[in-house]
This record gives sequence, C-alpha cells and structure tokens, in this order.
Amino acid sequence: MIRATEDQQYYELTSPVSMPKASGFLWNENMMIHMNCRGYAVAQFMQPEPAKYSHAPNLEAKTFMQPEQPYYAHHPGRFLYIKDEVSGNIFSAPYEPVRKQLDSYTFAVGKHDIRWKVISDDIAVEMTLSLPKSDVIELWKIKVTNLSSKPRKLSLYPYFTVGYMSWMNQSGEYVKELQGIVCSSVTPYQKYQDYDKIKNFSDKTYLLADRPPVSWEVNQEAFEGEGGLHAPSALAAETLPCGDARYETPVCAMQYRLEMAAGEQQQYRFLFGPARNEAEIEGIRKAYFLEQNADGLDGFEAAGPEYAAYVGEGQGSIQIRTPDSWLDNFVNHWLPRQMYYHGVTNRLTTDPQTRNYLQDNMGMSYIKPTIARGAFLTALSQQEASGAMPDGIILHPDAELKYINQVPHTDHCVWLPVCLSTYLDETNDYSILEEKVPFKDSEELATVFEHITLAMHWLIRDRDDRGLNYINQGDWCDPMNMVGYKGKGVSGWLTIATAYAFKVWADICEQSGHLQAAREFRQAADETNETANRYLWDGNWYARGITDDNVVFGISTDKEGRIYINPQGWALMSGAADEDKRKKLIQAVHEQLESPYGVEKLAPSFTAMREDVGRVTQKHPGSAENGAVYNHAAAFYIYALYLVGERENAYRLLRKMIPGPDLDDIMQRGQLPVFIPNYYRGAYRQFPRTAGRSSHLFNTGTVPWVYRCLIDGLFGLQGTPEGLRVRPQLPEAWHEASVTRLFRGAELKVNFKREAGVSDVEVYVNGSLIEGNVITGVEAGQQYEVLVKLP
Amino acid sequence: MIRATEDQQYYELTSPVSMPKASGFLWNENMMIHMNCRGYAVAQFMQPEPAKYSHAPNLEAKTFMQPEQPYYAHHPGRFLYIKDEVSGNIFSAPYEPVRKQLDSYTFAVGKHDIRWKVISDDIAVEMTLSLPKSDVIELWKIKVTNLSSKPRKLSLYPYFTVGYMSWMNQSGEYVKELQGIVCSSVTPYQKYQDYDKIKNFSDKTYLLADRPPVSWEVNQEAFEGEGGLHAPSALAAETLPCGDARYETPVCAMQYRLEMAAGEQQQYRFLFGPARNEAEIEGIRKAYFLEQNADGLDGFEAAGPEYAAYVGEGQGSIQIRTPDSWLDNFVNHWLPRQMYYHGVTNRLTTDPQTRNYLQDNMGMSYIKPTIARGAFLTALSQQEASGAMPDGIILHPDAELKYINQVPHTDHCVWLPVCLSTYLDETNDYSILEEKVPFKDSEELATVFEHITLAMHWLIRDRDDRGLNYINQGDWCDPMNMVGYKGKGVSGWLTIATAYAFKVWADICEQSGHLQAAREFRQAADETNETANRYLWDGNWYARGITDDNVVFGISTDKEGRIYINPQGWALMSGAADEDKRKKLIQAVHEQLESPYGVEKLAPSFTAMREDVGRVTQKHPGSAENGAVYNHAAAFYIYALYLVGERENAYRLLRKMIPGPDLDDIMQRGQLPVFIPNYYRGAYRQFPRTAGRSSHLFNTGTVPWVYRCLIDGLFGLQGTPEGLRVRPQLPEAWHEASVTRLFRGAELKVNFKREAGVSDVEVYVNGSLIEGNVITGVEAGQQYEVLVKLP
Repeated sequence: MIRATEDQQYYELTSPVSMPKASGFLWNENMMIHMNCRGYAVAQFMQPEPAKYSHAPNLEAKTFMQPEQPYYAHHPGRFLYIKDEVSGNIFSAPYEPVRKQLDSYTFAVGKHDIRWKVISDDIAVEMTLSLPKSDVIELWKIKVTNLSSKPRKLSLYPYFTVGYMSWMNQSGEYVKELQGIVCSSVTPYQKYQDYDKIKNFSDKTYLLADRPPVSWEVNQEAFEGEGGLHAPSALAAETLPCGDARYETPVCAMQYRLEMAAGEQQQYRFLFGPARNEAEIEGIRKAYFLEQNADGLDGFEAAGPEYAAYVGEGQGSIQIRTPDSWLDNFVNHWLPRQMYYHGVTNRLTTDPQTRNYLQDNMGMSYIKPTIARGAFLTALSQQEASGAMPDGIILHPDAELKYINQVPHTDHCVWLPVCLSTYLDETNDYSILEEKVPFKDSEELATVFEHITLAMHWLIRDRDDRGLNYINQGDWCDPMNMVGYKGKGVSGWLTIATAYAFKVWADICEQSGHLQAAREFRQAADETNETANRYLWDGNWYARGITDDNVVFGISTDKEGRIYINPQGWALMSGAADEDKRKKLIQAVHEQLESPYGVEKLAPSFTAMREDVGRVTQKHPGSAENGAVYNHAAAFYIYALYLVGERENAYRLLRKMIPGPDLDDIMQRGQLPVFIPNYYRGAYRQFPRTAGRSSHLFNTGTVPWVYRCLIDGLFGLQGTPEGLRVRPQLPEAWHEASVTRLFRGAELKVNFKREAGVSDVEVYVNGSLIEGNVITGVEAGQQYEVLVKLP
Repeated sequence: MIRATEDQQYYELTSPVSMPKASGFLWNENMMIHMNCRGYAVAQFMQPEPAKYSHAPNLEAKTFMQPEQPYYAHHPGRFLYIKDEVSGNIFSAPYEPVRKQLDSYTFAVGKHDIRWKVISDDIAVEMTLSLPKSDVIELWKIKVTNLSSKPRKLSLYPYFTVGYMSWMNQSGEYVKELQGIVCSSVTPYQKYQDYDKIKNFSDKTYLLADRPPVSWEVNQEAFEGEGGLHAPSALAAETLPCGDARYETPVCAMQYRLEMAAGEQQQYRFLFGPARNEAEIEGIRKAYFLEQNADGLDGFEAAGPEYAAYVGEGQGSIQIRTPDSWLDNFVNHWLPRQMYYHGVTNRLTTDPQTRNYLQDNMGMSYIKPTIARGAFLTALSQQEASGAMPDGIILHPDAELKYINQVPHTDHCVWLPVCLSTYLDETNDYSILEEKVPFKDSEELATVFEHITLAMHWLIRDRDDRGLNYINQGDWCDPMNMVGYKGKGVSGWLTIATAYAFKVWADICEQSGHLQAAREFRQAADETNETANRYLWDGNWYARGITDDNVVFGISTDKEGRIYINPQGWALMSGAADEDKRKKLIQAVHEQLESPYGVEKLAPSFTAMREDVGRVTQKHPGSAENGAVYNHAAAFYIYALYLVGERENAYRLLRKMIPGPDLDDIMQRGQLPVFIPNYYRGAYRQFPRTAGRSSHLFNTGTVPWVYRCLIDGLFGLQGTPEGLRVRPQLPEAWHEASVTRLFRGAELKVNFKREAGVSDVEVYVNGSLIEGNVITGVEAGQQYEVLVKLP
C-alpha cells in the first residue's frame, strides 16, 4: 500500500481512498505546488507576494499557509476524464472528480516529479508533473495505453481548474494561434495607489497543448452542467461546446480523440501556469514546444534533467546506511530535499519570521554554506542599533511585515548564535565574524561579532528585576500573546534559552579569540541558569513563564497547559538542569508529553481560553501550538537529549517524526514519509481519534534541527575548529552503520561497528587509530576511510 | 414556469434547472439570508460587522457583497436527503446536492417566507424558511407527505452546511440535552487587541430539532465519504455514524425514520443559526420549541405572524392597478419590500456609503418618515465644519470606514438636498430644517438648514477656475479613480449634479422662507449650467469629465466609454439642456445606451485599461460600473425623462427594470421579479450572450428612485407644501388606472381615466373639480375619492 521504489527515488501509494490527503510537493526558484494524491492542487508563485493561477470556486482569503486544509469537490486541481466512445463509460485520473474505483492506482511522489499510473477498463493513464528550474509552469505529460487486445476509441479530456479569478474582471477563451486556452483577470483593488502594483501582475492562466484539441470548453458551468463534476454534462455530447467565459468562472478543458490499436500508447503534453500577456504565452509555447536545443530536445524535455539537477543540488552532507532502512531512505533522499527547499525558497514569503529565516539558513550550512552566510548578513543588516532583532526579515523592496510579524516577539536575538554555530561547525569560516554590516536604523557599520554581542546585551537588558526575560506579546512557538503584553510578564523558556544562547556565544567568542567576551557570556549563562532554577523550577519540571499578574504557569497545579516541552529541552541544553533535575524532567516529559506520534508541545491541551496566557489557549486542542506534536519543538528536545547523552530516548523520539514504516501509523498520520510536517495532531490523551494526523504543511524549522540531531547527535560527526569530532550515539540495538560524510570539501566514509572488547570509542582514519577522536587535517578534495569501533 | 400566486404574495418557479441562480431573500433587524432556488444560501448577521454561521468549505475572503457569484457543489446551503428505505433510492430537496430530476418542483418566493414543494417517487417534500423579527435564527418547517397508495418507509436527512469555520479552532458534536448539533469555533485573530472584539462573538452554529433524531453526523468528510455529495456514503448505512468533528469541517446532518401510511403527512421543524454559547442555545430551544404563549403557540409558530407583520410595515404609499398587471404586482408587493429592507437594515453594514445611506432613507420617507428624519440628522452630525460630507456614515461605535469608503469621493454633498426634498414632499415637515446638530469635528450646533447650506458652499468651493467640480479619486457610480487624483481632473456629471442640487435647495429655501438663499442658489444653478454647456457639451451629448491632463472624455471621439448616462439624465434634471440639447442627448442615449435590458451606464464598455480614467475601465466589460445596465443610474435617467415630460420613453425604460413578463427575458436575466438588482449585465452590443444577466445583488439605491418615478412621474401624485399635486404621465396606451395613495395620514383613492373631450388634466376630489390640480387641505385619517380625467 505504501512502498519506496527500488531506486528509493519515489514513495508510492496504491490507493487514493485510505489516505485522501497524501501528497507530494515540487518547487522551483519562483513557485511551489502541493499536489494531492487525488488530483487536488495548491500552487503559488511570487509576484512578489504569493499569488495563484488556479483558484477556489469562491473568493478566497489571502492568508498564510493553513494546516489540515479540507478538500472538496471544486477544490483546485488537475484532472483527466477518459471516456470510452463506444460504451460511453467515464472514469477520471488520478481519481477525482469521478471517484470511480480503479483497477489499479499508483501515486508516486518523487524527488523531482510526481506521477500517477491508473488503470481502468484496460486503459492505463500515466500522468507526470514536473517543473522547470525557474519558469512558473507546470509541465504535464500524459500517457494513455490501450492494455486490451482490441482497438479502442477514447476521448481524453484534461480538466484543469482555473476557478474564481477576480470580481473585477475575469474571462477565458480558446486561442487558436496558441493552441490553448487563455483565461484573463484583473487582480481586484480599490485604491489607485495599488494600480502600480497590480498592473504588472501575471493575471492570466493558460493551458497550452502540444497539439490542437478536437474541442474545448472554457466555461465551468457549461462544462459541468447538471451532471455535476462527477459526470459533467459536456462529456455526454460528441464534442465539448467550445464556449468562452465572460465574467463567468473559467476552466481549461479540452477534448482529444484517440483511436488506439491493441497495446498502443499515445503521449500528450501540456503547459499550465500564469502569464502577463499573450506575448509571454507565445514565448513559452515556442520555448517549450517548438524550439529544440543542440541535443534535439525541446524545452519541455530539456526541463526534466535541468530541474532534477537543480533539486539534486540539495544533497545534504551525509548519506547513511543503518539497520533502519526506513530512516535511511528518509535521511538520504527526503530530509535534505526538504531542507534545501526551505533554504532556496524562504518558504515563498517576502518577510520570513526572523527565527525561521535564521534556522532555514542554518540548514543551508549543510548544503550551500555561502547562501547561509549571505542570509546571516542580511538578517543582521536589519537589526536595530539597540541590538533588537525585527520580527521578520524583509527580502523584497516592496515587502512589508505581515500576519504574525506584526505582533512583537522577544526571542529573535536568541537564534543568532544558535544558528551561526552550525555554520561555523560546518565551515570553520570564522571570518564571517569580522564582516561589517549596517543596522536598520543606522548606516554605521559594525562587525558581525559586534552585532551579535549587541543582540546578547539586548537580551540581558530586556529583563525584569529578577533577571527573567520579558515575553511581551510572544516568543517562539506559542502565541502566548497575553502573558506579558502589559509589560511585566516573563518567559520561562526565553530566560533559559538566553542562557543557552550565551553559552553558545561564549564558545564562539572563545574560538575566535574574544576571551574577555567569552568569560562575560559564560558568566551570564551561569547567572541566568541560576535565576531559572530559582524562579521556574516547579519540583519536577520548569514552568513556562510568569504572567503580568505574577502567576507562574506551566506547572503541576495547572489543570491545562500543565507542562510545556520547550523549557525542559532547553534547560538540558543550557545546563540549568543538574542531574537530578534532568532525570525528573525527562520522566515528566515521558509521562505527560510523549505520544505515539512524538512529543507534544504542551499538555493537557487547553480546551478553553485562559486570559492571562492568551491566544494559544484558544487554538484547537491538539492543533498547531496548543498541544500538537510540534515537530520543531520536539526536534529541540531530541537535540537536547543527545546533548546530555540520552541516546535511546533521543532515537525513539526521532523516529516518531517520520510516518511509518508501520502501516497503521502512516494511515493515522495520513501522510507519506516524504517530508516532516510542522506538526502531527496532539492531545493524544484527550482526543485519541484525531491524534497523529499530519498538518500536511511542509514549511517548518524542524528539518535543520533533525539534521543537527543526526550529525551532532546520532552519528556524532560534528565539525569543530580543529576538524571533525567523532562522538556517535547509536542506539544500543545497532551493531553497525555507515555514513558518507561530506565535510569542508572532503568525503569521509565512516563505518561504525560494535566490537567486543572495545571499552570506549576508537576512531581509525585510513586504518590508523587517532587520539582524541577529532579527525584533524581534513583536506578538501580528499577521501577518508574512517572506522569507528564502539563498545 | 414563472407565475405569481393568486394572492400575489409569491412568485413561483417550477424548475430548478432553467434559472439556477433564481433566488429570494429574507431579512430581519439583525440578519439577512439570500436563498437560492436549488438550496444554496448566503446568510449574514451583525456582530457588529457582517458575520456568517454557515461557511464555504475553504477560508473565504471577507469582502463586500459580490455580484453574479458562482455556486458550486459545496457552497453553503440547506438541504434534505430523502431515502426510500425499501428501494434505497435517494433524492434531495430542494434540488441540490443529488440533482435528481424531480417529478414536480416549485420554488415560491414570498414576502415573508420562502417555500419549496418537490415531488419525487410519490413523496412530497415541502420546505419553508421564515425568520423571527429580531433573533438571528432560520426557522425551517419540513412537511413530508406520502402521496402513494401504499405505506412507505423513509429516512429524512436534513443536511445543513456549516463549512470551514476557523483555522484557530473548530469542532462540532451532537448535544443530547439540546436535541441538536452544536458546532464551535474561535474567530481567527493574531493581535491581542482584537481579543476584546472576538470574545463576545457568536462563534457557534447550531441545528436544533423539535424531536430527537435516530442518528446524526457532524463530520463533513464522514458524512460524504467516497460517495460524494450527490450520493453520500453515510446514507448507504442504516444509520449515520454519529461522529463528531475535531478541527475537521463540521456539518449538521441528522436522520429521521418515517413509517408513513398512504396519504400520511408528517411535519418537522428545525432552528438553525449562530449563538455565543450553549446557554443561549438552550434559551432559544425553550423560547421556540418548549414554551407556549397565551394563544397556545410556541415561539416557532408565533414568529410567523410577528415576522409577517414586521415585513408588512414596509407597505409603501401607493397600491396600484393598471393595465400592466406585471408592474402592479411588482409595485404593490415587491418594490416597497425591497425599499423597506434598505431602510431598516442599512444593507447590513456599519458604514454605509453616505450617498447610499441618504437615498435608502429617502425611500423610508414613503414608509416610515421618522426613520428617514433621524437618518438625515445622523448623517449631518458627521459632516465636517467645512461643509464636506464623509465617504461613509458610521452607525456603530466600533465601526470604521472600509473598502471603497477609504477612497475619497467628491459627490456626497449633492445628495443632501436631493434626498431631503422627497422627505419634505412626503411629510411637509419643514421643521427638520431648524433641528440643530453638531459636526464631526466641532461640538458647535448648527441647524439642518445651515448644515446643508454649508454643504452647498463646499460644492461651490471645490471647483477649478472654470467652475467645474473636482473629481479627486471618484464620484458617484463610477470608480474613476484616476481622472483627478492629481488634483486637477473634474467631473462633468458632478458639475451638472451640483446645478441640480442648487436648484432643489433653492426650492427648499424658498419654501422655508429663506428667500435670499433661494436667489443665491438659483443663480449658482444657472451659472453652473452655463459652465457645463461651455465645457462639457460635445455636440450631441455631455462629456463625463476632464482629466488631470485636461483631456475631455466620454465624447464622440472616444472609442470606448464614448457616452455615459449620468451627465445626460442630470442635465435634463438641472435644466442645463435646452430643448435642442434635450432632443439630441435623448436620441444619443437611445441609439448608444439603450438595450433590451435597460439603459447602460456607458458604452462601448471598456475592454482595456485607460490609465487617465482609471479602475472602471478595468472592470469586466458589461459588469458593474463598466457598461452594465446600472439600475441606479438608469433610474435617474428615467426620473429625468419624467421631469421633462418624456412619458413614453420613461415608461418603456422603467419596465425594463423588472424581469419579464416575457419568459425569454426572465430566463436571460436569470432572476425572478421579486427585486430589482443593482445591475443587469450590459455591453449588449459587444457581448450579447451574457447581456441582461442579473447581478443577483438586491442592495441598490435604485429602488427609492423607481418609487419617485412612480409617484412624481408616472402617477404624478407628488406632495407639495400646499398638498398633493396631480400631474400624471400615464403612457398613451393606458386608458385607465387606479392608485390608492397614502399621503400624510390620509388615503386617497385615485382613478385615472382617459376621456374623449378632455383637453387637459381635470382633478375631481370627492366629486368636485378642483383648480390648479393640487389637492389641498388633505387631513390625516380621512379618505378621499379622486377622479383624474385625462385627455
């Protein structure tokens, strides 16, 4: 029912019914498409804000990406109807809208394309979607095969939704010269000042075919008729009505007639996407269908390998082979892909949240460190001279802070040393600390070292008399907008997180020769940890914060929101928790927050508003921040477990991030193991029916931290100024594993082996045992054979 | 196929297929529901901004009411599935979602309820929707009758959509104690400042039944299953799954089992609406189902007559009987109803556009003049001390100017005398001129007379050197936001309209004894008319304006937007056009703007952006302001025709506002004759296929002007300070007509008769011929028999 292909390049699903929300996603430099197994699609492109070329049937809200979105009959999608011209029978591929039970169905999500193969009544239909590297175009290849032993007469109808484009102006018609349908609209606006923005928008949606259709229909209502989408009236006639849409909902539907001998196969190709005008569409038609390159390939065919190469750049820095092949496949193929997507697209937003931007680029340290480097400089150039970091990083001159970025959060400074440290581990490029960049509110240049030191001082200043960090209207990962909006409430997590940030920054200071600063921040970390223990330790775990009215919350006497994961994991990282506290809090997390789908963010989920905490308590129990298995938070906890050597706990929880291999687990989550979603539904103890469900959102800061868990933790192959430190934490049950580690231009083939008689880790490089378990002198371009013997 | 019932209280449609968008609407003091013939619904209530309790399946945009909205399978609606438990056959009422062809179908839109009666397989299902007077509750009565001669076993499933309520929190469950389904949500917000607004919202949606169901389902996905809405999987089982919705799209579906003898009828009742909490729902249940009034009626049954009485207050001031029975029905039943709706609901907005607010209340002069009076005072209390009127009138302390009200328009002052004059005609209440009200920006009180005089002076000042009125970013009825945004462009229409406003105000001044002011404004009117003739007359009609770059537009050399209706009609009203110009412009309108569906607002419709005119030129050709038969504008033209005695032209165009009685005409418009929509699609000469289609929006300033056309024009029964002036303009073809005219508390039964030998209008009151054709001395409470002899 769920399987990886032999080459591990695809995950396949063999029924559209059991996991109706299963999906894959493709992206390129300018667009993203989230493709559902049943044919529904959500696609966005940048102009510069996210825009759509295939719309819902009504006026949609412009919003950030929403989790667990429902599908419905007229949801945007890409479909094919197939009619047997003799019997009149109809089915549709991939499954919607007819929903006819198919004789065979495969949905294959690949790294650089998405495919379906469905068979019904001895007709096989293969659909393949791929993207070019830069252009905002869906490339669709359709193969129809007559599997029967007799000739067949068929009609094939691509049905690509366009939807409700605009209340100002929308229309559509077939354009013979383009061999395609062009739908036009004007993005609605009311203020003349907005005209300058919208006048250059790509407000047309087109479907171009590689050959002229027999007939077409551009009017949704005329296509569907009284038959409904599951049996469109227009299909009952010999040809489609060839109508247009004039301020009517447009659709791109065409008809092809196929007379096929037994065993014959025919192939069709289509281009679907947005454009500014017909001239641009004409150009696309030429480039993709008409003109050929030196190898005799037209643009459509040439785009395939080019796109595969583009996605292939996101290889990551480890290839693993372990006793856990399900993990191997995910880590080798899907995890770096998802991390790369974040790094190159910035989640298709022009104002990423500062913490997201820093962490997404932390991930790029493993793939394309120069991009990470540039991003850190960009972020710091938007810092205020006071040291404060903004809530979002502006990536486009026309961009502005939107949605949650308009709500002041106090944690952004923390992420600077935390994310930079990975870049330094991976590259050893301490020269970045000497780069000079300006401030948002000052032209004066300061070094990165100075910038981050200012950020650390800002964190030290933004505290109350007790030394606890203010939360204002929120910090990371919890919309606790009413804990501290009056100016008094403090964040337990943030206080602890600053201790960790100081510690990390102190290490960087030391490594870069700023010894006085190192001492200063190490002391600040110690003091902060003490403060945390004084005010936040509740007996078995750390409190989440203290409200404006001086009420400590996230503690044992709370009925809901009794324990939050973030203060616990970060207290392990910061060193606040001594051994006794460690044990207690790990036990508390195990008992109260662990679920079959991972660690929940808080428990019990709030079921009613708590006004002194705020919005998080009004979110649906188990959803998003209110008790979900919020993978981003969970990843930190796992990372923390590795930091304190809790390898079995860590590995167990790490594996819960990937759906499967148990089929029931995959089904409950409703998602293929091709990405880690931002959350799985939580509140397992309160609402077990829905617990575990994937949010189906693949934008998440989780992925680089999972990568750090693997590199710094599980395999222990972390960079240091001296070289590669080998400190694996393989689970007890593994007797061997191997990792190909790309590191500073070198390739290290690392074999881990448990051997009897070994009492401590022994590292052999090219056959020789080394001292201290740090592989030094690693040279770019070289290969190393590394044997790691484990007790 | 379309017919009025014998009592003229209903319009009936006998097929759901031919006019899929046909609809009716009901409203009360706090809500509005627009009910489509196939079962789709759009309902809004105020808290204080418009809100929904039955949502689309996706995240909808919050927007103003949109025209010509498409329906789609999962559109919000109210449906019943009926299953024959023996055969398993299913159909649905009123038509969607199954779309089974019914043996009989009637959709009856009444003044105070909406009914369907459908028959399939010898089962009759009657559905009736009504509202209470104030509560936001849909009252549904369902009657099922076994028409066959054998006993039947049926299941009845009400299926009321709830849809995607909120990404923050949504759920639903059956609550046994309430005998109903309660769906809950939290309106999404991000800023803590918004919490105070949303915390009191009615975020629950409930369906209460008058008896417990056999089973239910609250989860949309579980209800529908793979069967789809046309054949829901849940209906295949013996009972519904009785599930809940947890951050899943909720629905209100219940099952009832009916064992019916031949001929037996059973009745079910349901309540559907929003609520704050379960206590409120419990209260509703008690009030509507459990407790009985002195007459032994429960709240549900008592609500019917109470609501009918409420709607019945909107009687208008004429009842007519003419050779045109289609007109009679519309004028006697539907037109005042629509006018009353505007007056009592203010279009369910908290910030009506100033011109709309004044005109809607002008209409109330004919129904409840005290409401009109209060509204004029409210509007003037928001005037600036400079005389400028705001773009919208704030009706709620929390309200703010939204959408188009954020774009500065320059015409609002014009409407003050124009609308007030009707109030004065109808009531003779000149005391309103002496009422004192403050300004928006000054506590100083000034009389209404002073306020409006200031407004007139503002119009005189807001002009260029030529004496033409600035347009800024727009004036009435055309979003011509780029004609004058640089501060130079002027409006031809507005200049002419000020002349008319001055003339009307001069009359009021004179009547109220302000003779000096009367002379001043009469002179201002004359000068303005001269200016208009100097700069705007194009040879056969008046130009629409002159742009910032001094380009005259709306003239014969323009390829698109060559002629606009508004300057023409108003030039007839203001007196700018002498007889020669009158003839020419009426001919031009006839040739270029008249269509089978009325007078278009401009022609030819723009098909591409004209940057020096602006947004209107980007609207879809023939839609809204870009060449539609914009009934509001058309009504003024008809009024103007009456003013200059063009009775045949006027009557011909007046009749085009009402769909039918010709069936093809009704079908093309796609709307029952139960309201005048804000537009019929225009661009008749460019896109004849779609021309004539109704916008299906019943919010429009058209209706009070149609009423004025009838009273001041067609029947000529207009009030004056002296009494009722009789000056009919019946079309030549009418030989008689009668009108019952309510006027200042009296009832006048007026009979018009053409008689041979009569050379001029003769008016007989209670048998006596009067002089001057003004009926004086009309006393409240009295009845008068009036005979009007016509040549």
